[in-house]
Amino acid sequence: MNAFEYAEANYETYVDQLKELLRIPSVSTLPEHRGDIRRAAEWLRDHLESVGLKRAEILPSEGHPFVYAEWLEAGADAPTVLIYGHYDVQPVDPLDEWISPPFEPTERGGNLYARGASDDKGQTLINIKAVEALLATEGKLPVNVKFILEGEEEIGSPNAAPFVRAHRDRLQADVVMISDSGLLAPGQPAMVYGLRGMTYLEMIVSGPRVDLHSGAFGGTVHNPAQAIAEIIAALHNPDGSVNVPGFYDKVRPLDPVECAELAKLPWGEEQWHEETGCAKPWGEPGFTLVERTGLRPTLEINGIGVGFFGAGGKTVIPARGVAKISCRLVPDQDPEEIFRRVRDRILALAPDTVKVQVNKVTAAQPALIDRKSPAMQAAARAFEAGFGAKPVFIRGGGSIPIVALFQEAMPGVPVAMMGYGLPDDSGHSPNEKFTLANFRKGITTSIHYLKLLAGSD
Amino acid sequence: MNAFEYAEANYETYVDQLKELLRIPSVSTLPEHRGDIRRAAEWLRDHLESVGLKRAEILPSEGHPFVYAEWLEAGADAPTVLIYGHYDVQPVDPLDEWISPPFEPTERGGNLYARGASDDKGQTLINIKAVEALLATEGKLPVNVKFILEGEEEIGSPNAAPFVRAHRDRLQADVVMISDSGLLAPGQPAMVYGLRGMTYLEMIVSGPRVDLHSGAFGGTVHNPAQAIAEIIAALHNPDGSVNVPGFYDKVRPLDPVECAELAKLPWGEEQWHEETGCAKPWGEPGFTLVERTGLRPTLEINGIGVGFFGAGGKTVIPARGVAKISCRLVPDQDPEEIFRRVRDRILALAPDTVKVQVNKVTAAQPALIDRKSPAMQAAARAFEAGFGAKPVFIRGGGSIPIVALFQEAMPGVPVAMMGYGLPDDSGHSPNEKFTLANFRKGITTSIHYLKLLAGSD
Repeated sequence: MNAFEYAEANYETYVDQLKELLRIPSVSTLPEHRGDIRRAAEWLRDHLESVGLKRAEILPSEGHPFVYAEWLEAGADAPTVLIYGHYDVQPVDPLDEWISPPFEPTERGGNLYARGASDDKGQTLINIKAVEALLATEGKLPVNVKFILEGEEEIGSPNAAPFVRAHRDRLQADVVMISDSGLLAPGQPAMVYGLRGMTYLEMIVSGPRVDLHSGAFGGTVHNPAQAIAEIIAALHNPDGSVNVPGFYDKVRPLDPVECAELAKLPWGEEQWHEETGCAKPWGEPGFTLVERTGLRPTLEINGIGVGFFGAGGKTVIPARGVAKISCRLVPDQDPEEIFRRVRDRILALAPDTVKVQVNKVTAAQPALIDRKSPAMQAAARAFEAGFGAKPVFIRGGGSIPIVALFQEAMPGVPVAMMGYGLPDDSGHSPNEKFTLANFRKGITTSIHYLKLLAGSD
Repeated sequence: MNAFEYAEANYETYVDQLKELLRIPSVSTLPEHRGDIRRAAEWLRDHLESVGLKRAEILPSEGHPFVYAEWLEAGADAPTVLIYGHYDVQPVDPLDEWISPPFEPTERGGNLYARGASDDKGQTLINIKAVEALLATEGKLPVNVKFILEGEEEIGSPNAAPFVRAHRDRLQADVVMISDSGLLAPGQPAMVYGLRGMTYLEMIVSGPRVDLHSGAFGGTVHNPAQAIAEIIAALHNPDGSVNVPGFYDKVRPLDPVECAELAKLPWGEEQWHEETGCAKPWGEPGFTLVERTGLRPTLEINGIGVGFFGAGGKTVIPARGVAKISCRLVPDQDPEEIFRRVRDRILALAPDTVKVQVNKVTAAQPALIDRKSPAMQAAARAFEAGFGAKPVFIRGGGSIPIVALFQEAMPGVPVAMMGYGLPDDSGHSPNEKFTLANFRKGITTSIHYLKLLAGSD
């Protein structure tokens, strides 16, 4: 039995193991789930050890820990691949929109529904299972392998930079493989060669000392809910572009060759409508939807909470409110500089009738990877073998802060983003799912990739 | 022992009874408190009966019930006074800002802290205690008395209009007394002769089918949080006036004589700063603070809830959000017309990239009372007797929808607004309180008023 046959034979067991991991509610942003984060890390450490990896251990960081394991017996001539994934998940609210409970994995129509199924526990397990299948059938791996699994990806990896610097030697590799992205559409694999960076901030607007009666004081107090709206409305121009001085200054001009290639992608307004359900696109004029999600920076309002918004009415002038704002960044924007620019713009807009405070939440560098490197080409061939279709090369709109950190720690190392999710997996929404067919094909693809890296496929 | 002495002798008991009523969390806007509303109504019915009133009963409405009781043995020549109060209270959020729990009445520094202490359980009990003291000492009342206590004042009295119409005969009176307002400042009683009306509405803005990942779709979707901000920001002009076509059309021009009288009130920017804690006033230009809170209409944003606003960050484009908006209205604005005007303005502002829905929550007519009527002058003398100071006449900024309904049901009847709260009682905020000295003096004032109405004081 070869590795591919072994993986096929054990597929049902793998799905059961994924369900076991998905039952642990490892929500990284909520302090009450700290124990669950720990449990998920321990589960993965034990699992990595059980499939035959060495030195499996939990490595502390300033926040939630990393999980590490390795197998380095392929010899000094064989390349070393660092495999990254994350075991933390997004919060589940609004809970009442879930069809089945988020931490009770449920199969429906060939999909496995659970928070973290696609982002990123299912994808992380794909690579562990590929290594297991190879070790179980061949007693060895074609390449040296290191796993590094993070517990704070969903909160912007605030402690990853010092961690990667502190463990630079242990993490050294010839190629990095990350599975935390997705296919372009069912049957159409995609290789992400660009990631947007991020600056996440919050704005707190304070007015009266306490909530006031809107009858007694309405008409004389600058309502913080209104002040928040006024400031937020002024952060975009009417045409949809961002109205923050200098915001676009360092954005690298688009490469016409790259844009022409991206224009051929089988994804446009029709797919956008299907995936969003929105009436009509919106955004920066002069750019296509693909360019706007992958190559251009954005400023998003992730939420506003101020005053009373339950059922019925409450006649209150709220004392304070908060808005959450995040910018997706592209090369060569600097997250710290953009934080300062947005903060300064907000403070310049702040009227003297209220108090406005701006706090930084997280920051991450954007990243671009050479899509012509041998490691990326090997990944492309692995996808073709696993899915029966050549992958398209795309720029991802999301942010994986650790990619830029790996590039800093290992200059020039290629980072192959081999993702198995689908655009409608709802990784940050209710009813997150992972397509089980992709879980299966992903394991095959991952085995092919490890062999191709060694030139043995 | 006369009635005044009797009230003094029983003061401690009265405070204990008030605490008993305050322990019932009769929050009218929250469905989970429906049983508490009922308990508060039953407590009041039993209490009205126990002090000697007749026909005490709970009268159903389409929503929470009214409590009624009467004593009509003063004879056909004696005037009949209808005494109004309400037994429902505002919600308590934010709960963590309360120093003592909202439904565990606590005395501190001569004040009684609890939700509803001032608005309106304490004030309601003042008039019941005045009647009790008179009945206990004289065996009769100088006037005929009817009590009508409401359970939906804090949600805008949505069912009061059909109730008052259905019970018009039973409610008939020569004068109405309402205790649901306050002194201008400690030691300075005030008679409210004008109330603002209200139109309360909610705006629901929907964008994508579900919450989206802001990385995958940021830059192409008109974010509902941003659309809400844009619409709200456009509802005021930069100078603070309301930017809704026709909003001010029917506002009665200010009377220079009245404005000159109001300008003499010992309340201005200094008191405003003390009471609000705000850096600086805001609002419609060309009007004083007194005019802006009492004589001019407003449009307030009572709250906005959209997306994620907890600790940390969540990179989401929210699917939908809600804003609560209320307008305070003055004669001769019509609440229904203003609802239509604000709704039409919002729908005209709504971009075609999102769906916007506007719902009416409540509506109430503004009211003006003849401050020179004999009933108002008797009330002024009662205040002087009870507090040792002549009351000032003011226009209230709040809304008591039932006042306009009483005026409609009993044309020409004077409505004496005799309130005992203080501006910093925080009736709609954490740490609501009632000053016990005013509870005591209020009972004295109320006894004087009932006697003065009969010409027997």
